[in-house]
Amino acid sequence: MEPLKVSSNSSPNAVAGALAGVLREHGTPALQVVGAGALNQAIKAIAIARGFVAPGGLDLICVPAFTDIRINGEERTAIKLLVESR
Amino acid sequence: MEPLKVSSNSSPNAVAGALAGVLREHGTPALQVVGAGALNQAIKAIAIARGFVAPGGLDLICVPAFTDIRINGEERTAIKLLVESR
Repeated sequence: MEPLKVSSNSSPNAVAGALAGVLREHGTPALQVVGAGALNQAIKAIAIARGFVAPGGLDLICVPAFTDIRINGEERTAIKLLVESR
Repeated sequence: MEPLKVSSNSSPNAVAGALAGVLREHGTPALQVVGAGALNQAIKAIAIARGFVAPGGLDLICVPAFTDIRINGEERTAIKLLVESR
């Protein structure tokens, strides 16, 4: 599944809702970010999503990893956050 | 155990080493950050630490959470990252 791209302008609440939606369909969502501002929104989204899904018995964790991507032909290092329930 | 405080000037490699050290002593480390730059270094540190401890059979995950702290008498929202092996 394609990672959800989060930017520094993304709303953490909206991203949290998207995460919860994918989890409800039994998917394993991943977030992809470039830059500190985007990462900040993504991590806030995961913390918020934990609250959305906890009443349903899910305990969300995240696995951070580096990943190389191309933006406009330039190589950049992005961070991918795999989100799973344990 | 007190969370390790990570700032935007922290070296991700050094923080990763500290995380690996705490895990080796069978502790459950936590990182505490205020601000996007600090969070960026902390998440990179966790990704790097995953590589440090993977050969020993540990598979690190992180649990992000909001936490209220006081800095110079002012209330601030920090992010705490609990780091565990699953």
